[in-house]
Amino acid sequence: MEQAHPRVAVIGAGISGLTAGKMLKDYGVSYTTFETSDRIGGNWAFGNPNGHSSAYRSLHIDTSKDRLSFKDFPMPEHYPSFPHHLQVKAYLDEYAEMFGLLEHIEFGNGVVHAAKDGSGGWRILDQAGAQRHFDLLVVANGHHWDPRLPQFPGSFAGESIHSHSYIDPSTPLDLSGKRILVVGIGNSAADITVELSSKALRNDVTLSTRSSAWIVPKYIAGRPGDTFWRTSPYLPLSWQRKAVQLVAPMLGTDPTMYGLPPADHKLFEAHPTQSVELPLRLGSGDVTPKPNVARLDGHTVHFVDGTSADFDVIIYATGYNITFPFFDPEFISAPDNSIRLYKRMFKPGVDGLVFIGFAQSVPTLFPFVECQSRLLAAYAVGRYALPSADEMERTIDADQQLHAGHCTDRPRHTQQVDYFVYEHDLLKREIPAGRKRAERVAAVAR
Amino acid sequence: MEQAHPRVAVIGAGISGLTAGKMLKDYGVSYTTFETSDRIGGNWAFGNPNGHSSAYRSLHIDTSKDRLSFKDFPMPEHYPSFPHHLQVKAYLDEYAEMFGLLEHIEFGNGVVHAAKDGSGGWRILDQAGAQRHFDLLVVANGHHWDPRLPQFPGSFAGESIHSHSYIDPSTPLDLSGKRILVVGIGNSAADITVELSSKALRNDVTLSTRSSAWIVPKYIAGRPGDTFWRTSPYLPLSWQRKAVQLVAPMLGTDPTMYGLPPADHKLFEAHPTQSVELPLRLGSGDVTPKPNVARLDGHTVHFVDGTSADFDVIIYATGYNITFPFFDPEFISAPDNSIRLYKRMFKPGVDGLVFIGFAQSVPTLFPFVECQSRLLAAYAVGRYALPSADEMERTIDADQQLHAGHCTDRPRHTQQVDYFVYEHDLLKREIPAGRKRAERVAAVAR
Repeated sequence: MEQAHPRVAVIGAGISGLTAGKMLKDYGVSYTTFETSDRIGGNWAFGNPNGHSSAYRSLHIDTSKDRLSFKDFPMPEHYPSFPHHLQVKAYLDEYAEMFGLLEHIEFGNGVVHAAKDGSGGWRILDQAGAQRHFDLLVVANGHHWDPRLPQFPGSFAGESIHSHSYIDPSTPLDLSGKRILVVGIGNSAADITVELSSKALRNDVTLSTRSSAWIVPKYIAGRPGDTFWRTSPYLPLSWQRKAVQLVAPMLGTDPTMYGLPPADHKLFEAHPTQSVELPLRLGSGDVTPKPNVARLDGHTVHFVDGTSADFDVIIYATGYNITFPFFDPEFISAPDNSIRLYKRMFKPGVDGLVFIGFAQSVPTLFPFVECQSRLLAAYAVGRYALPSADEMERTIDADQQLHAGHCTDRPRHTQQVDYFVYEHDLLKREIPAGRKRAERVAAVAR
Repeated sequence: MEQAHPRVAVIGAGISGLTAGKMLKDYGVSYTTFETSDRIGGNWAFGNPNGHSSAYRSLHIDTSKDRLSFKDFPMPEHYPSFPHHLQVKAYLDEYAEMFGLLEHIEFGNGVVHAAKDGSGGWRILDQAGAQRHFDLLVVANGHHWDPRLPQFPGSFAGESIHSHSYIDPSTPLDLSGKRILVVGIGNSAADITVELSSKALRNDVTLSTRSSAWIVPKYIAGRPGDTFWRTSPYLPLSWQRKAVQLVAPMLGTDPTMYGLPPADHKLFEAHPTQSVELPLRLGSGDVTPKPNVARLDGHTVHFVDGTSADFDVIIYATGYNITFPFFDPEFISAPDNSIRLYKRMFKPGVDGLVFIGFAQSVPTLFPFVECQSRLLAAYAVGRYALPSADEMERTIDADQQLHAGHCTDRPRHTQQVDYFVYEHDLLKREIPAGRKRAERVAAVAR
């Protein structure tokens, strides 16, 4: 008996939702994408009216274009090494256009609630108020839109915003002639610190970080840094990271060289911060490095090293929460960004549910979601079957150990994935293994 | 017979005039410094009312503080690796204060005209209108204040300024939302290009260069780049430069990697451009690289590769002329910045005249003028005598070949000096040799 394809719902039309749709379409599976916004691109749609873009005006992707490109759709030749967010958005628009993805998207109609129905499928309440039914649910709502804020004792009397709201030095706050504290050490923290410490703005900028981070230059020897490094899936990842850690001193990656606290993890066990400008600004005295905040008291911020200083503005570049507003929290949630997913895609025990894009894939995210979407499509047409829930749980532990090493205690580390190792595992091992499992199931059914 | 010390006039109270004064004072020579401004510091006095500062608001020195420090007076411990211009000025103020240099300076009283008088001394007309007489004249009026402008065919209908006038993105022009062409490839060109290409300003920035330049990072492996390199005076300079040229590809120094024209000289034969940000901006598409300008036509600029584009503003970061406004041009001038000076200090055939600071000393300028000033003081007290004019001419040729290699054809190359080789030559060879010459002269006179 030829099994009919499932009816598929995709939540979100960002890069994850788009690649999911593209692959489903390639496999002839009909699907509906629910998108709260009037446009595609999610995080890459600068000024996205749904509030889900964290892009600031100066944002450039930190992955070089060749590494960033979808395998199915290379970036235009004329693009620079590190495209600007407007170029990334234009590229996504061309991708959607080229593969006819727009016609599958219900714009301005997100998913308000999603729950299992009695028959093994999904009951969805959409923004328009309609009840919809699907067999397979793809969660692709992204993890860079719900601001995470640290809980410091005391209260701050100045203005404070999360980097999610930061657009440029005059939007949403007038950030000139101010005493500014940036909290965080990710790429947003680095970019915003560099932008606001421009002497032309006459700000005093301080950078405070708790867990610090390795700082990797975007360019090495005049080439995009990420073109030098390609993890081999045939050697232990821990050895390969050790090898990089040995050459790292040549690249000035150690944050203590610039007065920042030491990193609490080894290089590439967590997403490194890519900035050539931040070390220069610190070394030029344009940015004052500080350790973590101890407490807030009016306009004064006390740091854990016993120093303190007064500030007009605090910018929290402290990352994002993984949030599923359409699920009942007791059904599925990700406290402290921790969610146990098999191959970062499947929740053991919940059938017909696929997550796309819930990882910090280093060094590249676009081909990562593309590769996840290939598995999604195979799963949708019955050419991939999952192992038992027990086996999934065991594999989740092993994979986490493999990708994040000893770093499992910080929200920003829980999602760490080595792209090359992950892709090789998914395409060369997991999809064939899932296919064999599917064939066994089919043989038993006959 | 004990010879009386000469009466000395110093023109300028920038770094060259200050160190000259400090050394003369150390040797007990009385002197008068003529300074057109109301303050010391020359180029480093941001907004200098005499118009002789080329500092922009964001300017940081491109030499690390340890390399930059006067040997007699280290920079404060708390200074950052690359001090800001305000810190350099404060350092010079402390230097002048510490050694009692201010009392020798006539502020607001520059030299209007200087000429040999009949008796082998100097007749000086000062700004106040007084005729003054001195035995020894020290020219320390700097070479970074008289803007050099290229002569392109045609005319430009937009606004154009020289980098000398550039302060920040809003002074003296509102440089936001503009199509801007920066011409040049020195440190000023790089800094201004980077500042104006900040996305927050919404400019379109193009960088055009004729002769291009090697681009050297300010930081290498987390340390100031210039702390890695110290030329040895005991090995041929050309060999040592070859060695650096071999490792250069590791540092991404080649401008063609970022779309700029190739450098017309070898690395370190001319002052390299120090920027970690410019390659990033070029590689991010925020700055468009172009070769030299072919001609101007209204708002359109045609480049030598046949392309053209329209601009609102041109910024000429094309360097400076060496100008001696107080000398009759037929007596002493520097057409195309070329002036033949023995050890870059003495004009053969003109006695009682010393130049301080007329070189592009790589990697550092402050100890360079300090070392020249040591020779000046020895000369002033008769412990140093010059060789014959013929020998001086021969040595000028040999030194030029040594320091600038095959690069003698560009205004920015004519002054190239390797600091370490120069200092060793002056302190270990030239001053002792001049002392022997002085002793021979004295023996003959007895």
